[in-house]
Amino acid sequence: MNKLHSLKLEETKKNREKAQSIFKNLRDKICSTLEEVENQGSHKKNSFISNVWNRKGGGGGESNNLRGAVIEKSGVHLSTVFGSLPLGALDSDKSVNTDQFWATGISVIVHPKNPFAPSVHMNLRMLVTNDYWFGGGADITPMLHSKRKSSDPDTLIFHDSMRHACEKYPSIKYEKLKENCDEYFYIKHRNERRGLGGIFFDKLKSEETSQDLLFLNDVGYNFIESYKKILVSNISKDWNDDHRAEQLHYRGRYVEFNLMYDKGTIFGLKTGGNIDSILSSLPPIVSW
Amino acid sequence: MNKLHSLKLEETKKNREKAQSIFKNLRDKICSTLEEVENQGSHKKNSFISNVWNRKGGGGGESNNLRGAVIEKSGVHLSTVFGSLPLGALDSDKSVNTDQFWATGISVIVHPKNPFAPSVHMNLRMLVTNDYWFGGGADITPMLHSKRKSSDPDTLIFHDSMRHACEKYPSIKYEKLKENCDEYFYIKHRNERRGLGGIFFDKLKSEETSQDLLFLNDVGYNFIESYKKILVSNISKDWNDDHRAEQLHYRGRYVEFNLMYDKGTIFGLKTGGNIDSILSSLPPIVSW
Repeated sequence: MNKLHSLKLEETKKNREKAQSIFKNLRDKICSTLEEVENQGSHKKNSFISNVWNRKGGGGGESNNLRGAVIEKSGVHLSTVFGSLPLGALDSDKSVNTDQFWATGISVIVHPKNPFAPSVHMNLRMLVTNDYWFGGGADITPMLHSKRKSSDPDTLIFHDSMRHACEKYPSIKYEKLKENCDEYFYIKHRNERRGLGGIFFDKLKSEETSQDLLFLNDVGYNFIESYKKILVSNISKDWNDDHRAEQLHYRGRYVEFNLMYDKGTIFGLKTGGNIDSILSSLPPIVSW
Repeated sequence: MNKLHSLKLEETKKNREKAQSIFKNLRDKICSTLEEVENQGSHKKNSFISNVWNRKGGGGGESNNLRGAVIEKSGVHLSTVFGSLPLGALDSDKSVNTDQFWATGISVIVHPKNPFAPSVHMNLRMLVTNDYWFGGGADITPMLHSKRKSSDPDTLIFHDSMRHACEKYPSIKYEKLKENCDEYFYIKHRNERRGLGGIFFDKLKSEETSQDLLFLNDVGYNFIESYKKILVSNISKDWNDDHRAEQLHYRGRYVEFNLMYDKGTIFGLKTGGNIDSILSSLPPIVSW
């Protein structure tokens, strides 16, 4: 092994550790924020329950699940997995000419009980093969028909926060990431969008990895700060059976997307990830 | 066109019409039987609601949906579709070297309300490309853990009826069809079966097409006769919230299979079928 190659490996290792550390901090921040909202004005303390799992083939993770009164279902998951790359796990990406991979990531999903409060999802990841890069995104899904429009105040707050996370970084083009998101969260067979978008990126690797890592961290913080605001403004609103029925209906669309089109779900299932973590994105109660 | 070819086309046409006629009769029989069970001892008459749809590209169908008190959700659908065959619609079947198809079929799904009553599914179809053949199957899915075993009385009744439908026909090997079914309804990522099986067949074409058509008809009749017996014996049983929770849980597995692995769903969506018919297999209320 020559010196240059060895330096490159050392640098990659440091960045891997930094990514893991950022994701752990985000997990703490996100879980504590959601618990705070869940337990506001309540004596009963609902908390995230943590489960550690190991992956046959290499690595493992930690799933954190909350089933509450305000937060009907939430999953905040960390994982670091590595080993042989199963055929087709990275889609049909011909540029990845290796059979080994290492990946670390955080994924967050929140399905609140109050139909006025939108569901949100975020994930951030670092993938290492013969090269390394970052991917992820965050998006919002209002569950009432009347709120499923770009002018909805919650959606505006969410988009603003994502724009804010992007704007600090010259190499990040917010409009492109927003466009990616709209393209990605699309339910082909219904010819409709899953939600109202956000940002989505993959194969991110700018000249300064430290900037990419700061960007990931900003996405995570902006995500949870804006979502806290959105949650707090909605969870006391009165709702009835009709609102609930509408919510369960759109949750069905959410399931259709996740099981039929979501690459994260497919990657997770194909690489022998933890099923409960992967499918914890599915809403608690759904109707068709 | 030579005479032999012309005779063959004429024969195929007759068989297509016979298949359509058999499926229509079965639709009548199945809908009336389910309505009878739904409305037993009740003044309120819940009936199937029929909707006709046309397919862009050729053909169309009729979906019949019931949302009742006993039958929480049921779909009984007929369709006859034809035109150009979308790439990949017939899986990776290299033996089909044509780009035109004609298909007619019936599909039935029943999700009863009482958690003690199992869900069932059946579909029968005739597919014509440069050749023609039959496919289909019927299977049972108990939704309580305690009933998810081969010795469960409902499952025994169901399997007996399928065996009975097969045994009259020397070219039909029941054990093979049962094995196919177990293989097919398998949720790979969970390493578990969707339900408790039944029969499943494809590319069926014996020397006597009239016998194949009689077999399809027998599968349909045996299916609804045995299921009526199973329904009637379960719908008066007392159930509580725990039973319901278990039912919603296993319905989630049902959704996972249908959206991720079911070839009928994939074929339907890829050939521009009617989404409401295709996805009417999804249970009314589901939990994860």
